[in-house]
Amino acid sequence: MSENPKKKAGPLARLPRGFADRGPAEIAATNAMLETIRKVYELYGFEAVETPAFEFTDALGKFLPDQDRPNEGVFSLQDDDEQWLSLRYDLTAPLARYVAENFDALAKPYRSYRAGYVFRNEKPGPGRFRQFMQFDADTVGSATPAADAEICMMAADTMEALGIQRGDYVVRINNRKVLDGVLEAIGLGGDDNAGKRLTVLRAIDKLDKFGPEGVGLLLGPGRKDESGDFTKGAGLDEPAISRVLAFTAAKGADAQTTLANLDRVVDGFERAAAGVGELRTMAGLFAAGGYGEDRIVIDPSVVRGLEYYTGPVYEVELTFPVTNDEGQVVRFGSVAGGGRYDGLIARFRGEEVPAAGFSIGVSRLAAALKSLGKLDAAAIPGPIVVLVMDKDRVADYQAMVTELRRAGIRAEIYLGSSGMKAQMKYADRRGAPAVIIQGSNELAAGEVMIKDLVAGAEAAKSITDNAEWRAARPAQFAAPRAGLVQAIQDLLSKS
Amino acid sequence: MSENPKKKAGPLARLPRGFADRGPAEIAATNAMLETIRKVYELYGFEAVETPAFEFTDALGKFLPDQDRPNEGVFSLQDDDEQWLSLRYDLTAPLARYVAENFDALAKPYRSYRAGYVFRNEKPGPGRFRQFMQFDADTVGSATPAADAEICMMAADTMEALGIQRGDYVVRINNRKVLDGVLEAIGLGGDDNAGKRLTVLRAIDKLDKFGPEGVGLLLGPGRKDESGDFTKGAGLDEPAISRVLAFTAAKGADAQTTLANLDRVVDGFERAAAGVGELRTMAGLFAAGGYGEDRIVIDPSVVRGLEYYTGPVYEVELTFPVTNDEGQVVRFGSVAGGGRYDGLIARFRGEEVPAAGFSIGVSRLAAALKSLGKLDAAAIPGPIVVLVMDKDRVADYQAMVTELRRAGIRAEIYLGSSGMKAQMKYADRRGAPAVIIQGSNELAAGEVMIKDLVAGAEAAKSITDNAEWRAARPAQFAAPRAGLVQAIQDLLSKS
Repeated sequence: MSENPKKKAGPLARLPRGFADRGPAEIAATNAMLETIRKVYELYGFEAVETPAFEFTDALGKFLPDQDRPNEGVFSLQDDDEQWLSLRYDLTAPLARYVAENFDALAKPYRSYRAGYVFRNEKPGPGRFRQFMQFDADTVGSATPAADAEICMMAADTMEALGIQRGDYVVRINNRKVLDGVLEAIGLGGDDNAGKRLTVLRAIDKLDKFGPEGVGLLLGPGRKDESGDFTKGAGLDEPAISRVLAFTAAKGADAQTTLANLDRVVDGFERAAAGVGELRTMAGLFAAGGYGEDRIVIDPSVVRGLEYYTGPVYEVELTFPVTNDEGQVVRFGSVAGGGRYDGLIARFRGEEVPAAGFSIGVSRLAAALKSLGKLDAAAIPGPIVVLVMDKDRVADYQAMVTELRRAGIRAEIYLGSSGMKAQMKYADRRGAPAVIIQGSNELAAGEVMIKDLVAGAEAAKSITDNAEWRAARPAQFAAPRAGLVQAIQDLLSKS
Repeated sequence: MSENPKKKAGPLARLPRGFADRGPAEIAATNAMLETIRKVYELYGFEAVETPAFEFTDALGKFLPDQDRPNEGVFSLQDDDEQWLSLRYDLTAPLARYVAENFDALAKPYRSYRAGYVFRNEKPGPGRFRQFMQFDADTVGSATPAADAEICMMAADTMEALGIQRGDYVVRINNRKVLDGVLEAIGLGGDDNAGKRLTVLRAIDKLDKFGPEGVGLLLGPGRKDESGDFTKGAGLDEPAISRVLAFTAAKGADAQTTLANLDRVVDGFERAAAGVGELRTMAGLFAAGGYGEDRIVIDPSVVRGLEYYTGPVYEVELTFPVTNDEGQVVRFGSVAGGGRYDGLIARFRGEEVPAAGFSIGVSRLAAALKSLGKLDAAAIPGPIVVLVMDKDRVADYQAMVTELRRAGIRAEIYLGSSGMKAQMKYADRRGAPAVIIQGSNELAAGEVMIKDLVAGAEAAKSITDNAEWRAARPAQFAAPRAGLVQAIQDLLSKS
């Protein structure tokens, strides 16, 4: 570039931790994935809506997942007017604001979807970003469990539309009312016990990892892991621990058995019994819709971290095996989740507005699809590259690419200042199927030389030294200048 | 929703000024527009890249357009590690960081494009947002004016691909080297005169508004407008003012005349003469590519506000008339602009890396397309709505929508709690082409009743009281339950 060898001290070219750039393959694959999801949601009657990255801090509230540190984890700042603004940390809180603001203008029940970046001001880690994309769908203004059931069926359809086979995913559902009833039964009702309830929720969430015995310790005195580290427990007594574990173990061989088990667990708690009733209604709708228990299953061990859920909760788990960072073969795990949040819009409106929704973690789902070989890499073909053999004839080369583009063929003129060898290397790195060369000899003959890089690469690899194939596809051939577009079209049609 | 009539005080449901929500029609139209632009850029060999919303504050630098307040106008905050981060205010500064960070991995010249939101911490105004979308394309690693010419041709192709007719747009180009030569000639070279140069740039930028006489005043002692407000001038003397005005008036009847005029203006200034040479090269490429002066024109009155431009600058102007807020008929104006910025990546690398790019203001271009009737509203058809006539039979209604969706028909079950009349109103607001009704009579007869809302609306408008048409399209008809999907497919095929 410049001939100046002195380097001045400037800012370092790097990104803050937890942020990432994305290249063409990832962008194309993600876009294809988003488009597939969008089509399923449209089919279900959901419509697009988008809110900006910023909201007033007070409008977002304190609903960050998995947190006991209110408002930490949010990027906030004061603007020129000294008003506190925050970047959205999910797509649910902004939807609540949107619905409250446009309440009368929206036909209700209001089904909507939106994909967008959310921001978390947290310590990033492996696979844990400070900016990442979610894809949400929500139904606002419907109190019936049919709305929850619809979202679960849509989630199942979405997984299959993305190419995830039946059996490789499962939508697991539970109901917060049931869980709350159990907690109430063991004396953990009321605002005073919110912290303890959270500890219990987190203990249950470890069932996959530690099994009932380990979770029992976490619910009781505490648990020491293999390294000797001690995790303080919730301090429940034996009967309370048994009751919680009985609840989480209520899953039977089929929905009817699970529901009967739950009926016993919640016996005497009206609100919890209502929760079981909602699950029963949903199970009926799944059966009527032909969604078997291989696709959507009631699983009382499902707890979703968010405090604001008020009814059914759901989680999409991918069940196929992957090898984790420690070399263990595990299930891929959760890629989406959600539930009913009847109280969230009430913050603005002062009256409850029933609502239910779910959120897909886009990057995580993309990673899953990639490991299944289902992520449409949608590789855009490399461009035809016209080499610059004579710097005074750039206009001639420019005319070639213009002709090719007008014929719908992706094409470039080499715009650097390097020689033939570097230009060929450039074409190779660009994934060019062919380069076009017109030096003085070709010009005099009214021709162009076309190097077929696909054929050239095959020949170099010696996979095909079949004489017939090479005759049909020479690595280099001349074509009349007037027939350039036709020659390239012929060549591309062989690929 | 809730029967509780008490309203609690909560946060107000509103957005901070300068931020906007977007509904389904706007989202669909913008997406169609972005897709069209993307296809043109791909054809030119540009490839997608995306950077995150945040950068380190020092990596963004002080390149905000139109500003003499360094770092004002940027949303900045300290993260958990007390590092200063800023939200990107354009897509060029992050690209510079990206290229510097990945320099060796990129095949150069590196053509890339990206669309994304940018953020300005400024007082918002009509049509002036604090979050808006830009769509950029850049070529990094090419010093030749052919790279600039390519971008200008791509800009012209993009306008036509979007449906803007030849004659309704023009790409106007100029060269900073020429302008800098003129400023040097009048004694405004060097760092000390940066502020004065900015005043001169801004004065030239007012040519459309005030004409040469008004600009002459702004270049000299200052100008008093009709309301009596006085704008301080640049304080140039008469010969300097004449020289600047001669430069801005150098545009002739054709490119050759303009270039000859510029040759005279820059006589004796080597760098400025080189700038005219670059414009001459570009003009040659436009002619060779068949891009006439009705599409791309050299116009010495083009000044782009950004300090960092080092060579050719370009601007896409829409020339068709629109009526502005004050009721005056004016040209629509600029929707895109850019130029060469050979010094921007050097901030990181210590050596110059030639680069050129341009940026489309997505919302502004969308507004332009809308006023031309070219914005593809791409209205997604409303869903078929299945009414809930009997709350105990939700599973039956659910089965209907499932069948319709499996046939690729957008369909919804009504999920609210209201009666028949409200359900019909809901279907109407959703733009439903038809509703499906199955009460006890229809159930007994093994039928569904289909209300054709399109036919119903036509009949109500009395546009068609033609008996034949009404016979072919009755507003309501029965169909066997087993033939539901077929009946809806037949109905939709008539639309």
